Amino acid sequence: MKKAYIISTGTELLLGTTVDTNSMFLAQKLGELGLKVMGKSIVGDNRDTMTAAFKTGLDMADVVVASGGLGPTRDDLTKEVACELMGCELQLVEAELENIRSFFARRNRPMAESNRKQAMFPPQAIILKNRLGTAPGMYLAKNHKVVVLLPGPPGEMQDMYLHAVEPLLREDKRLTGPGSQTKIIRVLGPGESQIEDLLSGILDKGSDYGIALLAQDGEVLIKITADSGSNAASAGSRLEQLTHRIREALGLNIICEGDDTLAGVVANLLMRQGLTLAAAESCSGGLLSKMITDLPGSSQYFWGSVVSYSNEAKQVFLGVNPETLDKYGAVSEQTAAEMASGIRQHAGADIAVSITGIAGPEGGSQEKPVGLVYIGLAREDSLEVKEMRFVSDRNGIRTLAAKSALDLVRRRLLSGGAGK
Amino acid sequence: MKKAYIISTGTELLLGTTVDTNSMFLAQKLGELGLKVMGKSIVGDNRDTMTAAFKTGLDMADVVVASGGLGPTRDDLTKEVACELMGCELQLVEAELENIRSFFARRNRPMAESNRKQAMFPPQAIILKNRLGTAPGMYLAKNHKVVVLLPGPPGEMQDMYLHAVEPLLREDKRLTGPGSQTKIIRVLGPGESQIEDLLSGILDKGSDYGIALLAQDGEVLIKITADSGSNAASAGSRLEQLTHRIREALGLNIICEGDDTLAGVVANLLMRQGLTLAAAESCSGGLLSKMITDLPGSSQYFWGSVVSYSNEAKQVFLGVNPETLDKYGAVSEQTAAEMASGIRQHAGADIAVSITGIAGPEGGSQEKPVGLVYIGLAREDSLEVKEMRFVSDRNGIRTLAAKSALDLVRRRLLSGGAGK
Repeated sequence: MKKAYIISTGTELLLGTTVDTNSMFLAQKLGELGLKVMGKSIVGDNRDTMTAAFKTGLDMADVVVASGGLGPTRDDLTKEVACELMGCELQLVEAELENIRSFFARRNRPMAESNRKQAMFPPQAIILKNRLGTAPGMYLAKNHKVVVLLPGPPGEMQDMYLHAVEPLLREDKRLTGPGSQTKIIRVLGPGESQIEDLLSGILDKGSDYGIALLAQDGEVLIKITADSGSNAASAGSRLEQLTHRIREALGLNIICEGDDTLAGVVANLLMRQGLTLAAAESCSGGLLSKMITDLPGSSQYFWGSVVSYSNEAKQVFLGVNPETLDKYGAVSEQTAAEMASGIRQHAGADIAVSITGIAGPEGGSQEKPVGLVYIGLAREDSLEVKEMRFVSDRNGIRTLAAKSALDLVRRRLLSGGAGK
Repeated sequence: MKKAYIISTGTELLLGTTVDTNSMFLAQKLGELGLKVMGKSIVGDNRDTMTAAFKTGLDMADVVVASGGLGPTRDDLTKEVACELMGCELQLVEAELENIRSFFARRNRPMAESNRKQAMFPPQAIILKNRLGTAPGMYLAKNHKVVVLLPGPPGEMQDMYLHAVEPLLREDKRLTGPGSQTKIIRVLGPGESQIEDLLSGILDKGSDYGIALLAQDGEVLIKITADSGSNAASAGSRLEQLTHRIREALGLNIICEGDDTLAGVVANLLMRQGLTLAAAESCSGGLLSKMITDLPGSSQYFWGSVVSYSNEAKQVFLGVNPETLDKYGAVSEQTAAEMASGIRQHAGADIAVSITGIAGPEGGSQEKPVGLVYIGLAREDSLEVKEMRFVSDRNGIRTLAAKSALDLVRRRLLSGGAGK
């Protein structure tokens, strides 16, 4: 299996306030190509640290992909450092200089002398056009190593990777050759050890494939990697066989495969069945609605929701009976049921889902501990409530509550009979 | 200025699906101590990559802080690799072995032989108690270098850092000595270049301090670093002087300083003034409510909200006039105003805030482009609407809309006259 190493440059990434989304995007995409990501370095504009990062990358991996540091200033060092280590010399490329000149001319601005730097490339490099900014990228292959340099702004980086770099990597026999392929399957419901049991017959074997389980945000990710090996069967068909066996073992517990998300799967099911959804949230405080509306076009099937963070809100907007709240409490099966049927009636939606629980850290008791969550689901002809007990912190419990609510909708839509 | 390097270990961090929150936490905390973070390495359970990361860290920095890889299995290599590079030998510490034995005894489980490994430390190390798990951490100082090893689970790591490591680092003369101090000031409203203008007199000077502006999630972070230098004035008082000047220049545009957040500031103002808040969200889809309820205890001042993602929801729950929707559209000053006063009346809250806009990518027009957002604010004696035009993607526009709504509440609560 060929190996990759990722470098992100940018002083802001070292403050602890900015998530390095570039390296996450690249890790995912390189993994999809069947490359094993050995490590990542995040560096500022310091030449020594950057040199150390590229050295480690070139030592450990077959391809090093770096983002950032392609600008015109003295602090933009990535290209210089990478070319020095690859033993390549930077030369002025007239055509690129012309591109940059005309970029400034179109804006009626003078080109600074420092911008010449952005037109310097080694003769061995493939220069990658930046469709969204000024800094071109670079694909440099020499001997058995490849270095890819991408711009730092995430939009420019992703565009260049998808349009220019991915096709080059796919065709580069140094890297992907017959190679291996990977796939991610997302599971919600059973825990890691339960999944291990369910997959025991599949996990045990495997000289020509690997399976890793990873818990993440309440889901378990199953990452399968298949080598083409010496066998005639391609990695792709091997991957398909494995996926088939995992599907048989886990059934409805599989949320989705590949790039899809839980909210995306629910969206597709709702649209395909022509149904609308409404929600009533208490402890999740708007997170479920946010997950649903993260998707463009969600207004086609999402009516809206009430975040009933007080008892009054539950009464005023959802018609929850004050006696129910008195007798059973805001966190109870009964309240969850009335919340779901209340929002469904007000909204005139086909399906309504409700969440009430104790996210903590305060507010728990012996009888109703932090992590206790009720999820209600109302349809025209049915009303059900599920009790869940999550062990996590406030953020984790809220995430698990929102995802479990979406998942209950998914399961009912899949099991049919979810008609209006 | 003394330097730090951060290492995170964990195969799941190399998949591109998990945010490395440990290194972000550590970067922020080490920065607060006045240490300059030179870089970060994220590695899996590969000995060579891990060795390269520690080598780089010990070359570049005075202190290397690593998290993860302290477990009992063969893959847990951090301690071995670090001690080898520091030239220290691991020895069995009987007292630690006893701790681990009794941990298992209390749970009526046999201790595996492999767990002995967790009781091995070099004699020079300070062993750090893990109050939330089994793996102890380690603070190892030798010559002029310090290596700190922390457990991987974020809760255990943060607890150990705050309770054991931070006090040791503060007192370690190798690292913090007279040193420098840093502070972060968060600004919402003016953009980076506008802030540069407002701070020009302060930004220009500064041999004994540094100021960096960083855009992040709609806010601009001003990071100030003050050296104590040879001058008698301490870095602390220098930092206070600088902060004072920045406060004078930016006034109400400063959201908060240090660890606080916009939602936290609004929460404190509401509680201090004894006021309640309700919200009506359209394009932000629940994100504003989520931000408010991320804080424990938010039910004290947050009544709840309506996520009116359809016109019907705006009519049914907020009493928006169908004629208003017809005549001006769902994204209009008039609809924002009716949403805010509608939710305020239903909720009986002191303050109500509303958001309606076009988050995109679809749904924009010449007259009402993607990024157009109206924010309404209703109080007993006043009703106002602000028009905003954001340039970003769907996620960015939603974040900016929710933050701007919170910020409008903050500004009105600060400018007084926000009484019931």
